[in-house]
Amino acid sequence: MTALEKASGKLGAEMRALCLAARAAAATLAGAKPEQRSEALKQSAAAIRARHAAILEANYRDLELAQNDKPTSAMTDRLMLDDRRIEAMAHGLDELAAFPDPVGTVLAEWTRPNGLHISRVRVPLGVIGIIYESRPNVTADAGGLCIRSGNAVILRGGSESFHSSRAIGDALEQGLESVGLPKAAVQLVPTRSREAVGHMLAMNDLIDVIVPRGGRELIERVQTESRLPVIAHLEGVCHVYIGSKADPEKARKIVLNAKMRRTGVCGAAETLLVDRAAAKELLPALLSELHHAGCEIRGDETVRALDKQAKPATEKDWFTEYLDAILAVKVVDGLDQAIRHINHYGSHHTDAIVTEDKDAAEAFLDKVDSAIVLLNASTQFADGGEFGMGAEIGISTGRLPPRGPVGAEQLTSFKYVVRGNGQVRP
Amino acid sequence: MTALEKASGKLGAEMRALCLAARAAAATLAGAKPEQRSEALKQSAAAIRARHAAILEANYRDLELAQNDKPTSAMTDRLMLDDRRIEAMAHGLDELAAFPDPVGTVLAEWTRPNGLHISRVRVPLGVIGIIYESRPNVTADAGGLCIRSGNAVILRGGSESFHSSRAIGDALEQGLESVGLPKAAVQLVPTRSREAVGHMLAMNDLIDVIVPRGGRELIERVQTESRLPVIAHLEGVCHVYIGSKADPEKARKIVLNAKMRRTGVCGAAETLLVDRAAAKELLPALLSELHHAGCEIRGDETVRALDKQAKPATEKDWFTEYLDAILAVKVVDGLDQAIRHINHYGSHHTDAIVTEDKDAAEAFLDKVDSAIVLLNASTQFADGGEFGMGAEIGISTGRLPPRGPVGAEQLTSFKYVVRGNGQVRP
Repeated sequence: MTALEKASGKLGAEMRALCLAARAAAATLAGAKPEQRSEALKQSAAAIRARHAAILEANYRDLELAQNDKPTSAMTDRLMLDDRRIEAMAHGLDELAAFPDPVGTVLAEWTRPNGLHISRVRVPLGVIGIIYESRPNVTADAGGLCIRSGNAVILRGGSESFHSSRAIGDALEQGLESVGLPKAAVQLVPTRSREAVGHMLAMNDLIDVIVPRGGRELIERVQTESRLPVIAHLEGVCHVYIGSKADPEKARKIVLNAKMRRTGVCGAAETLLVDRAAAKELLPALLSELHHAGCEIRGDETVRALDKQAKPATEKDWFTEYLDAILAVKVVDGLDQAIRHINHYGSHHTDAIVTEDKDAAEAFLDKVDSAIVLLNASTQFADGGEFGMGAEIGISTGRLPPRGPVGAEQLTSFKYVVRGNGQVRP
Repeated sequence: MTALEKASGKLGAEMRALCLAARAAAATLAGAKPEQRSEALKQSAAAIRARHAAILEANYRDLELAQNDKPTSAMTDRLMLDDRRIEAMAHGLDELAAFPDPVGTVLAEWTRPNGLHISRVRVPLGVIGIIYESRPNVTADAGGLCIRSGNAVILRGGSESFHSSRAIGDALEQGLESVGLPKAAVQLVPTRSREAVGHMLAMNDLIDVIVPRGGRELIERVQTESRLPVIAHLEGVCHVYIGSKADPEKARKIVLNAKMRRTGVCGAAETLLVDRAAAKELLPALLSELHHAGCEIRGDETVRALDKQAKPATEKDWFTEYLDAILAVKVVDGLDQAIRHINHYGSHHTDAIVTEDKDAAEAFLDKVDSAIVLLNASTQFADGGEFGMGAEIGISTGRLPPRGPVGAEQLTSFKYVVRGNGQVRP
């Protein structure tokens, strides 16, 4: 189906109308004063709190419907809202309200010899399409980030969280309208049909950027089908490299945290590289501690000689994002091999070195080609909140900006404003 | 054909080898010292001058072969090199050598309450694919910009300029090798086959960004076929809006320059909007001057009432990039209508207002949704050189950065470098 054919059906026409409303709202939101966007966020937070019962009720409906699909406990946990989670959404919106408004900031300015004054001014991206899975709180987080950055947003949440997202969306609409901003600045796709995603991906004249948040299958579908710029990361095959001059205690703490704090997040370490010079001294105790913490170890030959419990790692393991309590472990011959391994097998997401050797540290930070590189710190810091960005919509491993954690400031572009007094070009 | 099938042929294998060499070279070039990249540019300039005769000879061969296609004089002009143009290429490379090196610049840095020090550091994009048409000097300009920004580049020039580009490419290779940098940092596609472009567009695991430079057909093909981020503008439907309080002399000079200085550049004005309050006083003399300069006028009814020579403008004219001595002219009822017209019919490239009314000026600069907006200056300033960027590879109308003129600094991305002393995430 071509974009035109897709848009010709009933759903296509509906999606097109939604996008047109978003475009109009985007212009209004971008032109609003920063305080107005802040107030809309505060009022949205208040509306979330006021609609507490309605949100729980909607969530209960989603949870009941989900029973038909025999959900795993992890799925139910993602979908479920409670008092704490509802308050967390409201609190997040309040925090965004207090966060500096990025729109209109002059990023650079200079005057040319001919008197032209040029400034690079931050502007919103326009209309952002966000496609996510079952967590209903993303509706508030992503909607809030878009209000803060002056963008209109079309939210397409998971079908399991349809009613919960709708109830949260109602609160955001109320927040926008209470300060005189168009409610179409935050719109939810009004159907559970998966076809709606196809329509969004084809709407390249009306949507400016697509942000898919979810599993590999979703990201791949979006990257393959979309003609639009995509802000995403496919996966996070994150590494910790213990260098020859690592502090053993730092190494121990960092590896355990990077792997085991939460195993399902994109910044969780999936592969541990250990310098041969440090392996014998460090690995046996470290791996034993990981086993005790419930982590499976898949090692190369050297690792298996030091740890009888370790399973053999295959070539595929070095490429794998487990998102689980499994760690691939390899002994490497020095810094260069570590860097080559990471750049070859990794996903350019987040990688750390543990070392007290300054030169080795700087070489690693310089040569590892990832969005985030860390020295003596856990890879689990890969998070917009931890970076001080207020909140994030995700982490991008794309080469073009925005790269790394994507917060409100990163959901903007810029324009050049040139002021003259009659200059013409010779 | 899938990407894999494409890459399985002989040309596919050849292109893949080329891209792999580029990837390796990109890492070396990115890791080189700024002075080494500067020296490579200086040596490339010297090699262009030293190979002057060989370049002219290669160009003569291209010109002879082009005769079979009965080229227009414009085509011959684009293809032809002479002493002046060869020196201009060398001079451009010398200028880039003196231009600040963007790689490694710390764009921002801050320390978190937990002691983590975070910096955002400029890095090259990686491997850039540039697809262009018959001007052979683009080989030197684009190759030089990529060396300056630490990127490896794969250049695919027009088949008409095959030998000229090869001769220029040889000079760049010599420049790189003379300072110990890999010549694979600047590679030319070794075939005239159009299939090579398809291979480039499918190489999304090895090429990071595609920059198409050329006519609408090329840009559309690239935007449709490519899975890679594309830096480009489809067209430049640029506007000059004469406000109700415009200075008549400024308006006259700016419109004539914006339209007629060079009609074939993307920053040339294609539509003139005139405020009804200024139309009667300004338009008759202005349009008569445009006619004298050889410009065809296509006007709405009001315009045709003031200018008997004007032809009628149709709806299609407001969307059209003539790239020729033709100007669509419309009388509008005030600033808001002008802004709506530009945002609806324009291409978000470059648009100017002529006015002495400060409020109207600021509203225009704020609300016109284009990469470049100007006050009292000609749209023909839409150019990286005129912006002080040293040189440019083109102007992007994409929403995500880089937007506007794309020079060496804009051909970069960034990474986050996080330095800790053992921090783990709570």
